[in-house]
Amino acid sequence: MKAKVAVGIDLGGTNLKVAAVSEDGRALASRITRTDASRGPDAIIADMVDLVDAVLAEAGRLRSDCAGVGVGSPGPLSPTSGRIIRCANLPGWDDVPLRARLADRLKLPVVLDNDANAAAYGEFWVGAGRDGADMVMLTLGTGVGSGVIVKGRILHGHFENAGELGHMIIVPDGLSCGCGQRGCLEAYASAAAVSRRVIEKRPNTAAGLDAEQVAREARRGDAICLSVWTETCRCLALACVNIQHAFNPARVVLGGGMALAGAFLADPVREELRRLRWTLHDDLPEIILAELGSEAGVIGAAGLAWSLTRHGS
Amino acid sequence: MKAKVAVGIDLGGTNLKVAAVSEDGRALASRITRTDASRGPDAIIADMVDLVDAVLAEAGRLRSDCAGVGVGSPGPLSPTSGRIIRCANLPGWDDVPLRARLADRLKLPVVLDNDANAAAYGEFWVGAGRDGADMVMLTLGTGVGSGVIVKGRILHGHFENAGELGHMIIVPDGLSCGCGQRGCLEAYASAAAVSRRVIEKRPNTAAGLDAEQVAREARRGDAICLSVWTETCRCLALACVNIQHAFNPARVVLGGGMALAGAFLADPVREELRRLRWTLHDDLPEIILAELGSEAGVIGAAGLAWSLTRHGS
Repeated sequence: MKAKVAVGIDLGGTNLKVAAVSEDGRALASRITRTDASRGPDAIIADMVDLVDAVLAEAGRLRSDCAGVGVGSPGPLSPTSGRIIRCANLPGWDDVPLRARLADRLKLPVVLDNDANAAAYGEFWVGAGRDGADMVMLTLGTGVGSGVIVKGRILHGHFENAGELGHMIIVPDGLSCGCGQRGCLEAYASAAAVSRRVIEKRPNTAAGLDAEQVAREARRGDAICLSVWTETCRCLALACVNIQHAFNPARVVLGGGMALAGAFLADPVREELRRLRWTLHDDLPEIILAELGSEAGVIGAAGLAWSLTRHGS
Repeated sequence: MKAKVAVGIDLGGTNLKVAAVSEDGRALASRITRTDASRGPDAIIADMVDLVDAVLAEAGRLRSDCAGVGVGSPGPLSPTSGRIIRCANLPGWDDVPLRARLADRLKLPVVLDNDANAAAYGEFWVGAGRDGADMVMLTLGTGVGSGVIVKGRILHGHFENAGELGHMIIVPDGLSCGCGQRGCLEAYASAAAVSRRVIEKRPNTAAGLDAEQVAREARRGDAICLSVWTETCRCLALACVNIQHAFNPARVVLGGGMALAGAFLADPVREELRRLRWTLHDDLPEIILAELGSEAGVIGAAGLAWSLTRHGS
């Protein structure tokens, strides 16, 4: 008999990723397809079912060899009820009972959580946060997603929306954020915000720079790019101080597209954090870079399915 | 046979409070004495033991009728090891194994936690946070203490110092805080900070105003007091936005001396919170005033002892 696998699904506005994952976190088979979001939930759920079967087949497993399926999805959503409440990038996903619909089609246990939580769980399970129990991850992509791991479990909170640290207000009356607030971490530290702030400071540039280009120009000494990059690292360090005092985690993991800058991101964040932080108690979290890259979500979703078999929730 | 009781101890720099508390959270007997901190730990621990026996006797109980003893203390301290690491207001309390010393003397199970956590647990158990499982309390006294309750348990974190929300940075490069940081919530919203900011704005006043007097003058329309009070409420609302996105609790409970201002504190915080908060998801915590006043700590410490009998930690 072959060892069981779990299947992770990472539902995004652009791509749909599915992987069969071993109990020690290795992807044995994986598929990626365009989400083609305009087709609406029915077609995408049908794709999910087909892709689950496809990765199981590729891994040489039957559905009966599958311990369960985990789904990371944009939200807001309810892990408890297994329903997606709404998705900005996925038209038609209003109050969709995704967990029940997949469980019904697949005849397997299914767990649903938001994409940033799934990515955090992936890094906690087999990435930068392994060998610890308390970890916070910031995913610095188009937005700033985050997930908080407390004693090995994702923190959800009363309204099931805990760990939305991208919307922590870092600068009172600061830059407007798409969420309706001002001064959110996301308005400074997402890849999109970095790109936008550079464009605003040099509006005569014909083509905009994306965050990766901003990092490259900053490294070369471009004054505007460097000032935006430095401000970004400063905002992340402020967020880390607040994360330290809120959750007191062992580690804060920086992931998403921005983390591709590596030490050029992490080093100034660490330095600024040491400058900003209190002197009362030696409880500074380690700031580390994510290790799983864009696979964190799909691996973490599978990890949640494995966790379901152990904890039942 | 009489119903069991638990005993709560609230160790402060000024007062030492001890109470025998029923399983439903009623104080059956209580004592308060001056801590007289200069005497050092040995004498104060001896007082604790005497006061535990005294409240048990007054409640008509023997030590064998006592389920356990909970201690809320200033910190930093380690709930896991039961040791006090250091206390700013208690000379000589450097690395004192308080839990072991009390357990040894009393022959009873003892649990140790920090004072703000004990107060939060008290409000959660039988005060403003009862009937919920996820709650954050801010104790606005000389400093700003806080405690975070997740699924009915105090959040401690990897370094056992989670929920130090008074040292969340609310204003980058803001007012200096005693902790070594700048712009902490405590530098704006503690009773001491409110008093200090008014004095700085009108240095010619012979006698300073305490926070209660500032609230009274602000109500009467004094421009300086009103502007400081309004700024204070604004900082608290910013903190509540960040608490919302971090923990997503059902309630944020405002306690400590500042909360004596009642609706004059809570109403502007609620109003500002509604103005600042995001529009993406309907997950705003309820802002409510503490109910147990200065008894929250001693009741909560007893509650932790009761919790110990149920959960074993």
